[in-house]
Amino acid sequence: MAELILVLNAGSSSIKYCAYDTHEDALRLVLRGSIEGLYTSPAFRATDAAGAEVEARQWGAGTELGHEGAIAFLADFLRGHGEGHTLFAVGHRVVHGGVRFTQPARVTDALLAELDTLCPLAPLHQPHNLKPIRILAERRPDLPQVACFDTAFHRAQPEVAQAFALPAEVTGRGVRRYGFHGLSYEYIASVLPGVDAAAAAGRTVVAHLGNGSSMCALVERRSVASTMGFTAVDGLPMGTRCGSLDPGVILYLISELGMDAPAIEDLIYRKSGLLGVSGLSSDMRALLASDDARARFAVELYTYRVARELGSLAAAAQGLDAMVFTAGIGEHAAQIRERVCRQAAWLGVSVDPAANASDGPRISAASGRVPVWVIPTDEELMIARHTRETLAARTP
Amino acid sequence: MAELILVLNAGSSSIKYCAYDTHEDALRLVLRGSIEGLYTSPAFRATDAAGAEVEARQWGAGTELGHEGAIAFLADFLRGHGEGHTLFAVGHRVVHGGVRFTQPARVTDALLAELDTLCPLAPLHQPHNLKPIRILAERRPDLPQVACFDTAFHRAQPEVAQAFALPAEVTGRGVRRYGFHGLSYEYIASVLPGVDAAAAAGRTVVAHLGNGSSMCALVERRSVASTMGFTAVDGLPMGTRCGSLDPGVILYLISELGMDAPAIEDLIYRKSGLLGVSGLSSDMRALLASDDARARFAVELYTYRVARELGSLAAAAQGLDAMVFTAGIGEHAAQIRERVCRQAAWLGVSVDPAANASDGPRISAASGRVPVWVIPTDEELMIARHTRETLAARTP
Repeated sequence: MAELILVLNAGSSSIKYCAYDTHEDALRLVLRGSIEGLYTSPAFRATDAAGAEVEARQWGAGTELGHEGAIAFLADFLRGHGEGHTLFAVGHRVVHGGVRFTQPARVTDALLAELDTLCPLAPLHQPHNLKPIRILAERRPDLPQVACFDTAFHRAQPEVAQAFALPAEVTGRGVRRYGFHGLSYEYIASVLPGVDAAAAAGRTVVAHLGNGSSMCALVERRSVASTMGFTAVDGLPMGTRCGSLDPGVILYLISELGMDAPAIEDLIYRKSGLLGVSGLSSDMRALLASDDARARFAVELYTYRVARELGSLAAAAQGLDAMVFTAGIGEHAAQIRERVCRQAAWLGVSVDPAANASDGPRISAASGRVPVWVIPTDEELMIARHTRETLAARTP
Repeated sequence: MAELILVLNAGSSSIKYCAYDTHEDALRLVLRGSIEGLYTSPAFRATDAAGAEVEARQWGAGTELGHEGAIAFLADFLRGHGEGHTLFAVGHRVVHGGVRFTQPARVTDALLAELDTLCPLAPLHQPHNLKPIRILAERRPDLPQVACFDTAFHRAQPEVAQAFALPAEVTGRGVRRYGFHGLSYEYIASVLPGVDAAAAAGRTVVAHLGNGSSMCALVERRSVASTMGFTAVDGLPMGTRCGSLDPGVILYLISELGMDAPAIEDLIYRKSGLLGVSGLSSDMRALLASDDARARFAVELYTYRVARELGSLAAAAQGLDAMVFTAGIGEHAAQIRERVCRQAAWLGVSVDPAANASDGPRISAASGRVPVWVIPTDEELMIARHTRETLAARTP
């Protein structure tokens, strides 16, 4: 009987999932979907690998399904729609693996206790990532679970790339540049040899541009630096996050504007970035379609910061042999890619407008020194792979 | 009778000064020195242009000379040692000129009132910069004074280089990247044509590396980007300042370590940077002389961040035609220059060890694509020039 790996990505108000058939050597996507509005107006959706809807369900407004109810519903649904599959294991996206986790880890009580201690490092995400793990550990103690960390891939960076210039009493508490989107970069690194062998062997900057945006410099497919820091608010401007910000601004907000930490958190995580600058939308598609001067400036600021970080990351890699765009904006916003490439002409980056308009895969000019690629990312598949490999390694 | 321009740079506990003879077309340094420990144990020192001591005086511990007493003492001293000179004008280094001041400005009551409104943007420096201006305006209302701003040179930057990705209600209050050390960069830009005409006409990154450190990208001698932001704590690590820091770290310090704004200010301005990382010293000379692993790491982190910012600034200038080192570390720490140049080899930067050991002026290899220069900065002379020119323009 075929076995399924379920991949879960749980946030504060939603759970995204994918189910993979492990029968073949390559993992095959069977179902994907989400349960949104867990505590307000839950909505369940499932599509097959081709994107066709398999099921949709809407609960009434005010229904508190919660993480517990959502996991129970999903487990029932998979039993009913598994087509003879049994659930073999569950892989989870966990934002923070701290300093210690450089690899995925099989879930145990001790692991959960350790991951709990990292909640202060990612209070907006870590507790929600851990909820479904706990729920499943109680309901199905026999079911193997694997935690896959968004930070783990970046632990290969040199110490100097991970350090802030702060004293030991602060850095000793784990205040360092962790970097995130690691599962996305690891996926790109895993497929890069098949796309561009020279890029895989050399210095490649990957731009993961989505609602959350970051960039990562790879040397021989290992992370040597990334734009996100201690939290996922640092680096590039994003949909609603500010990106890099002088720490003196935070002191000013406190002392001159009388803001407290929750108000500042709300400002820099949820009211800044593309939304804050444009005053209109956090959605790049809406801004690109707008004639509003503030929308244009938000787009200009975004591409300028990508171009600046590209220079900084090329410095970390001591050169640039290739560039990759991925994630929502990176895969679909040809205008953004074109602007970034034009600003990076000094690095040997070019753009072929026709190839770029059709989303690549190669969008650089034939004569360009630095090949530029569009590669769709797949964090869920990376988690499914990790889950299978982690369990195989533990059960020889 | 020859006339003097006095240049003052006033901090919270010290006043530095230079006096220039305006008789010749070129301003000629006559005296320079400082009064330190204004509120604790004042010490006055004056040297001539050759560096020979002209006078030194020490007040007893516990003496509160203050800014008022120091200015009075200095005025008396200059009368006694002016060798027939009269005081023609005073030029002041003022850290913050806000958004409006793109040039130096003659001091009036209205100007002082406007500069007062900028104190919240630079609470550690601006109030002290303004004190001697007020004192002299009261004591010598006839004496022309000129305020020269450390921010003014950077106002030529494109808007996108000055903007944070924050909403208008915050940026509208003046929260933007101002950049500092502008008088130093302006001085370098002023002498660059005589040093390297191609660099002056092209894209040059200047590294002002001192106890305070920053970098600036020049295109055709105009600032297009710099590493310091809203305050002088952003960008490179410095003697005791942290440089770039994820704003999420500040929220963590508040919510997890229970720190308040004054404690955080003390941490990031006075306990971080080289001092914080090494746990030993804020002085680069001491760290370079140390075998301690933490000292070595502090030096490594410093040069790594310089190399990263060089890449980012080259991106802002869309290329690199030349590089300049200046200020205390930049002019005297050959090891730091060599490390930075080696990390920047991918940009065409090179180093000639012999030329570098003797502090240049040109330290790049003869075959190197990007010339690298050591140019001593002179912010005081820049202020003296501005003072003369501003007053000449106003009194035709």
